[in-house]
Parts: sequence; C-alpha cells; structure tokens
Amino acid sequence: MSDPWWEQLSRARDQIGAFVHRTPVMTCAAIDRVSENTVFFKCENLQRTGSFKFRGALNAILSLSLEKSARGVITHSSGNHAQAVALAAKLHGVRSFVVIPQDAPMVKREATEDYGATIILCEPTYASREQAATRIIKETGAVFVDPHDDLRVIAGQGTAAVELVEETGPLDLLLVPVGGGGLLAGTAIAAAHLFPRAKVIGCEPAGADDAYRSFNSGRRVTEFTPRTIADGLRTPLGEQNFEIIMKRVHDIVRVSEEEILGAMRFIWERMKLVIEPSSAVAVAPLLNHSLDVIGERVGVILSGGNVDLDRFFQLF
Amino acid sequence: MSDPWWEQLSRARDQIGAFVHRTPVMTCAAIDRVSENTVFFKCENLQRTGSFKFRGALNAILSLSLEKSARGVITHSSGNHAQAVALAAKLHGVRSFVVIPQDAPMVKREATEDYGATIILCEPTYASREQAATRIIKETGAVFVDPHDDLRVIAGQGTAAVELVEETGPLDLLLVPVGGGGLLAGTAIAAAHLFPRAKVIGCEPAGADDAYRSFNSGRRVTEFTPRTIADGLRTPLGEQNFEIIMKRVHDIVRVSEEEILGAMRFIWERMKLVIEPSSAVAVAPLLNHSLDVIGERVGVILSGGNVDLDRFFQLF
Repeated sequence: MSDPWWEQLSRARDQIGAFVHRTPVMTCAAIDRVSENTVFFKCENLQRTGSFKFRGALNAILSLSLEKSARGVITHSSGNHAQAVALAAKLHGVRSFVVIPQDAPMVKREATEDYGATIILCEPTYASREQAATRIIKETGAVFVDPHDDLRVIAGQGTAAVELVEETGPLDLLLVPVGGGGLLAGTAIAAAHLFPRAKVIGCEPAGADDAYRSFNSGRRVTEFTPRTIADGLRTPLGEQNFEIIMKRVHDIVRVSEEEILGAMRFIWERMKLVIEPSSAVAVAPLLNHSLDVIGERVGVILSGGNVDLDRFFQLF
Repeated sequence: MSDPWWEQLSRARDQIGAFVHRTPVMTCAAIDRVSENTVFFKCENLQRTGSFKFRGALNAILSLSLEKSARGVITHSSGNHAQAVALAAKLHGVRSFVVIPQDAPMVKREATEDYGATIILCEPTYASREQAATRIIKETGAVFVDPHDDLRVIAGQGTAAVELVEETGPLDLLLVPVGGGGLLAGTAIAAAHLFPRAKVIGCEPAGADDAYRSFNSGRRVTEFTPRTIADGLRTPLGEQNFEIIMKRVHDIVRVSEEEILGAMRFIWERMKLVIEPSSAVAVAPLLNHSLDVIGERVGVILSGGNVDLDRFFQLF
C-alpha cells in the first residue's frame, strides 16, 4: 500500500542523512528499574543545535528551489527551531531571519545569532510572532519555514525515530513530546510504516494541553494560554500535524509541572545528560506509572538539551 | 622490556571488563574550534556510579582473597570512591563501610547508602577521615580499600585510557584531572605502554596544587588546605601515585576556580553532558590556551558527573 507520508519521510532521510548527527541511543538501569520497562533513549539533545529541530528545518531548506533559497528564509520560534533554521541556512549559504519572543531562553537566542541569523524580537504571544514574520516576508521576500505545520518539516523530524528503531529493533511503545506536533506526527509516520504494532503516545504538559483536548474532541484547539516550564511545547498543534496525529497516534497523556521537573532532574542525575524541560515531558509518564505498562520495550525521544544555565552558574 | 605496572593494568582489564561500562568517546565541534585541536572525551561520567572510580574499586575488591572479602571492606572518600566501593562490594556480596566527610555532596552520600554501604560521617578533614576508618577497621576487621594509593586501584583507573585509545588510535596529548593521583598514574602507565609518544598532563585546581608542587620540587607535599570547588581533587597525592607520576607524567598544569566553572558550563551547554567540577579541571586548559598546543589529537578523561543539583532545582 502506498503511503505518501512515509515516502516523503524516506526521501528526507536520504536528503539530510549526511548533515545530521546520528545521535546515540542510550539506556539507564535506574530508569528501567523504576519504570519496570526496558527503555531506549534517542538522544536528540546531542543533535546539532541541541535538538531534533535541525532535522526538519534542514529538510525544508534543502527542498527549496534555487530561486526560492536565493530569497532567504524566515521563521518564528521560541528557540530550538530558530537555531535549527539558522544553522541549516548557514550550511547551505542561505540568508535567514528569525523572529524570537522576548522571553525565550537567552542561550537559544545567542546561539541563533552565532549561526548568522538576523534576529527580530517580538512580544511573547503566538500572534505577534506571526505578525512580525509576515512583515519581514513582505519586506524581504524571504520564504517562511514553519516550525511544524509543513510536511517537509514533519518528514525531517520523523527520521529520528527511524534511526532509533534501526538500533533497538521492534518497540512496543514510543513516547514523544508534543507541542506543535512536528516530532509526534513524524514519529507516528515512521512507526506506522516500520513497526505498526507499536503504540505512539504524545506527552504534553497539563498546562498547555491543546493537543490532548484536540485529540479527544476531534477538533483542533488553537486558543489557549500556555502555562508550563516546557518552553518548546507552548505552541498550538499545526493543522497538518493534527490530521496525522488523529490518524496515527494512539493516545496523548498529560503531565504536571512537578512531574516534568522531577523527570528532568532524574535524567540529569542518573544519565548525566542535560535535557530541557520539553524533553522531560516524555520521560515523566515512565516515572509516575500513569501508563500502566510493564515489561515492555519503550522508546523515548529526548528532544533537546537547550537550557538556560545562567541562574545555575550564578549560584557558585 | 617487562613493565610490572602495565602487567597489573592488563590483568585489571581482564578482571573488571565484564562489569564496567565501556563508556562512549565523544567529540564536540565547538571545543575543537575554540581549542584548535581535535579533542576526544572519554565519558567516565557515564560510568557506573557516575565516575571512573568504579574501575579501581572493583579491581581492588575482585583482587581480595575469599578470606579477606568475608571480613568486608572499608574506605573513606569525599564521594565518588565511596559509591564505587559500595557498588563493587554489593555486586560481589561483600559488606562495605564508608567514612564520608559531612560536607560531601548529598547526592554522593545518598547514592552510597542506596548501594547498601554502612555510612560513617566524619569531620571534613583528611586526618579525621583516616581516624574514623582506623576505628572501624579495629572494630570489624574490614579490609581497607584506599581511594588512590593502591596499585590495584591505580591499575583499574588506567583501564579507561586503554579503552579510549582503542577507539581513537594514537593521541598526542592526554589531559587528566589529579587529586589523589589514581587516575593520572593509571593513565600514565597505559600511555607509556600503548602510545609512548603521547604526553600525559595532570590538571589540578590552583587552590589544591599539591601535585603541581610535589612534581616540581620532587618532594611529595601532604600538608595543605584545599580551596576548590572541585571536591574530588582536594585529597593529597598518594605515595605510590607520586612515584609513578614522577616517572611517567610529563607535566602538571593548574587552573583557576573561574576557569573550572567556565569549562564545566561549556561542557554542559555544548556537549549536553553533566560533568562535575573535578572533570572540568581537565577541560579548562583547552579553553584558556595555556597549553600552547595547536592541531594535535588530544584525549580528555571526563572523570565524573556527580553534582549536587539541589540548589539548581530549587530555583524553579
């Protein structure tokens, strides 16, 4: 049976393979013991730019015609997609503009500038991000690279799950954080093709549970005020992402802020890996036993590791 | 030419190989760029118990006669050796006692208890650590496992460098933190045998520079008051360690507290690896360019990742 989503993902793999890090898959005896499962972590916090976002941004930019890429690219992002677009553009000699909300972690903003992007600051609302981007597009003709609602971006994000399962073999369960839904949709496409018996579960902060409510009502929720430390997951679900998620994702679970912090600390302390709160959202359901799953082979995508360490290092 | 130190190290490898993690060797484009060298990090922060200390402790305990191991083992340690002895003893059904100074990071103390050791707290001086241990030995007959001044421990620590060079091939330079000198002496033994053209350099906090002063004067300095955040490097150089270091180490360099923190932050931010300050001591010379080395192949042993995160997570 032909599956155009998978075909696009498969092409993305060929297109970006030489430029992305094949990030390691790690395990942790302490997590296995606490969760009573065998857990494999795909370490996208070790991806270039510190998150999986590089995969999708690169695939989108490499898919542009020469004429379009000559006009430059633009995006808006709370941080990780910003860095991803900036580096992907730089690697291929494309000019980039990035709209960043004022409250984004400083480390993400600085890294984006280091990659050579032109930064435009805006108010910390989704609407003002879109407004600023529209203005720049009008002024420069730059091509918009959506952070998630774009099939090339979704296909790129899905390549992480392909690499994961190549190393682990069949999995019973995949846990993936969901914000705009690029990583979750991409992972679900990969899973449906490569290991259709696995369940794909989106993990979301209770304080920004638009995907949970959308999934359960069948209607995409776009108006809400996110209240979560997981700064990568504050954005609403994209339209195409929603469609894919409704068809190929098995469930969406919510976790509290306390559980996010607990999971983040657990990974820092036991795995010695710096992960950001958004990544911890997909770890938390294993620690709080809300999934009611025992003895299974579980894949978790540790989506990123860009944390603002200023406050921590000021303590010394 | 026969080399009894190397022979012991080689036996240690066979003895502990099945129980230690073969930790990954990682690279980091940002470090390469800043230091202008090609740097390979042996990630002993990902070793069992979170530091290389597990190698030496395990080798020492596996070397005990049945009669001796039946009496149990005892050690004193600011933290990492404590966990290492506790886990190594537990794995082999040996009872363990650990003397820990009151100011040791809580995370290290708790982990030691979790591994089943009996904890004895003492004043935060080296003398009171030794006193408390002597008392327990008298009371229980337990066998002392020295944190560093023991050829079986030194041999165990040296196995990390063997694994490193198996993956990287020849290196020009090896940077190793030095406290009691177990890791540095073990690494120097491995290097002298496997890649004699490489320089082995000990890295030490300027605030606890007994190894630097011992190395340069030829007389072992044992009386000093350490003032450094690198809690694993506050102990004086062991006697046998000093002998090996004088014969096989090329130089010892010192770094400031500011440089230690800067290097620690660099690794957290760019490599997304949690390393403790003692590990950062061997990274700092690459960032401050004090080594005057360019274009070389450099190995760094990231010795451990046990940091007390309480203060950080209280910020949220």
